[in-house]
Amino acid sequence: MAEDFKVTPWEVTGDIDYDRLMKNFGTTPIDDALLKRLGKYGEVHPMLRRGIFYCHRDLNLLLDQYDKGNKFCLYTGRGPSGNTHLGHLMPWIFNKWVQDTFKVPMLFQMTDDEKFLFKDLTLQDTRSLAYENALDFVALGFDPDNTKIILDSECIKTLYPISLKVAKHVTFSTAKAVFGFDNSTNIGSIFFTTIQAAPAFLPTEQSGKQVPCLIPCGIDQDPHFRVARDVAPGLNYPKPTMMYCKMFPGLSGGDKMSSSDPMATVYTTDKPKEVKKKVGRAFTGGCVTVEEQRAKGGNPEVCAVFKYNYYLFEKDDAKVNEMAEKCRNGEILCGECKMALTNKINVFLEEHQAKREEAREVVDGMTFEGFKW
Amino acid sequence: MAEDFKVTPWEVTGDIDYDRLMKNFGTTPIDDALLKRLGKYGEVHPMLRRGIFYCHRDLNLLLDQYDKGNKFCLYTGRGPSGNTHLGHLMPWIFNKWVQDTFKVPMLFQMTDDEKFLFKDLTLQDTRSLAYENALDFVALGFDPDNTKIILDSECIKTLYPISLKVAKHVTFSTAKAVFGFDNSTNIGSIFFTTIQAAPAFLPTEQSGKQVPCLIPCGIDQDPHFRVARDVAPGLNYPKPTMMYCKMFPGLSGGDKMSSSDPMATVYTTDKPKEVKKKVGRAFTGGCVTVEEQRAKGGNPEVCAVFKYNYYLFEKDDAKVNEMAEKCRNGEILCGECKMALTNKINVFLEEHQAKREEAREVVDGMTFEGFKW
Repeated sequence: MAEDFKVTPWEVTGDIDYDRLMKNFGTTPIDDALLKRLGKYGEVHPMLRRGIFYCHRDLNLLLDQYDKGNKFCLYTGRGPSGNTHLGHLMPWIFNKWVQDTFKVPMLFQMTDDEKFLFKDLTLQDTRSLAYENALDFVALGFDPDNTKIILDSECIKTLYPISLKVAKHVTFSTAKAVFGFDNSTNIGSIFFTTIQAAPAFLPTEQSGKQVPCLIPCGIDQDPHFRVARDVAPGLNYPKPTMMYCKMFPGLSGGDKMSSSDPMATVYTTDKPKEVKKKVGRAFTGGCVTVEEQRAKGGNPEVCAVFKYNYYLFEKDDAKVNEMAEKCRNGEILCGECKMALTNKINVFLEEHQAKREEAREVVDGMTFEGFKW
Repeated sequence: MAEDFKVTPWEVTGDIDYDRLMKNFGTTPIDDALLKRLGKYGEVHPMLRRGIFYCHRDLNLLLDQYDKGNKFCLYTGRGPSGNTHLGHLMPWIFNKWVQDTFKVPMLFQMTDDEKFLFKDLTLQDTRSLAYENALDFVALGFDPDNTKIILDSECIKTLYPISLKVAKHVTFSTAKAVFGFDNSTNIGSIFFTTIQAAPAFLPTEQSGKQVPCLIPCGIDQDPHFRVARDVAPGLNYPKPTMMYCKMFPGLSGGDKMSSSDPMATVYTTDKPKEVKKKVGRAFTGGCVTVEEQRAKGGNPEVCAVFKYNYYLFEKDDAKVNEMAEKCRNGEILCGECKMALTNKINVFLEEHQAKREEAREVVDGMTFEGFKW
């Protein structure tokens, strides 16, 4: 059977079968035993309980190290190709939880070079977008003393020697197989994965001792980190530990919120009216008429509005279950759910936007090696 | 007929047919008209008169610009994979003549990244070698106020944005065709050509106006600059102008002096005894016995000792012709020529080595953007 979905760092299409993806990529499910173990460090995050961060590579090994007193460095990133939307915030919010729970330093890479190479954008474009995206990242409240933002073009002198070491161990064959490149791929795109690998090895390179690295990110980034993990032992770097999440859904019912459909995408700078309009048009699991829905009930499994609550806006498990139940029973109509979600998003965004403005004062102090925007 | 020689930036083997190479690469011969034109700017360098710098790309266009007052930037480089030998000095000596004649700024790129990627060397190795090579470069007397040394790993922040622009316009297809890469090539090597292109465009990038660039170098570097020239118009950079020289011969009679045969290679730090020994073993065009040579004469065309005089050590055309004549007539024996060349090389090296020591004081002041070794 042909694959009916595609997940690469640059393209996510189709109905994603996350179990199949996990098997294809060879990652390990985050199971009950692991959730229980994670519970020892603090309250387990809803994204873990709900299987949104759903698979990993070597998380137990990282926790073993942590238990022995060997702290890890947290690393995630952003490809600045557009304005920040809720789909971007989701894994960052999870990273914030990891930082708070384990009290670890954090590296946040902004790949202005990548988006220049892969998109129809100038380096000025991707740099400006990176600044805007960084405001959203900082607004989430990462520890300013323990968090550094890497902008590739600014920090390349530190990244480059590590990238070269990675590059020397990766053939075009491998890049072709892992990323689906072909002869028409530009040579910058082919090289790029080495830049994304570099921050994972940076703490080890700079401290001269083996510093474990934990990378919580979207599963679409796994190809990059498969490569990084493959070369790590040969370079005497620890293999980065991965935690992967599912894609944050789009309002139109698709599997991934995407900037290519702005009306199905809630940006962090959206005004309440825009949010109302976008959520109002969301794809739901409801029936065509009120009568039908009262009689047959709706289907929360396919409903974007329900998913938004499940992924991000309703942290209380009991309430989420109740919401699904009421939908299936026809007790609640799509309009009501939409109104409630609109309110939740707007409450969240009002606070986020205020913090985002405050971030302008802080973001300069959080740049890696003190680069200036 | 299969090619019986191979000339790439990383491999020069076989008996090079320089005319065929010129045709294959599509470069233009430096003919009498061009030599005459060059004569207007000063005494034409022996390497030009003797066809050692023998072909070019767009040199007339560059001179047209120069005549209109648009000065060019001079650029050449060195891949620091070993100690400097006479073969490396040759094109640098020519560059020095260009700088003196046209009073232009000079960029000297040292590709520590390249040699790390292509050779079994660490980045520390290639950096140390770069420093040693830089001493030889500086010893030749380049204008310290108008010459900057680029060490790739140190200057990458400035090179990288230009490299990315180049990279976005070069596909793997092109790299494969131009450099002979295949699926087993590492992805750093594939990307590297963009780094070698960058200094050619740097003056234009930094000044915001079109600054022509002249690159005198070995013809083995043409693949890199074919790529750079191809992408230049699309990036609004002027196409770099090229002047190509033949490879400096080895003492064993091969077409290229190579560090892989240290006994046939004169290093800039060789002591007089070593030089004597190496030149003593040189391949010549002489006969087996003195009697035979007196009777039949020798063949300067194939003689490494004669070539050394022709390429570098005898600037007087009349004397070079006399030397060839006397060899063909059997008037002079190989031993005599070897002794004379040994003396010439040792006189040159004594002075060079003294200047090389003085260069230690100057080299720090000549680094691009003031990097520290």
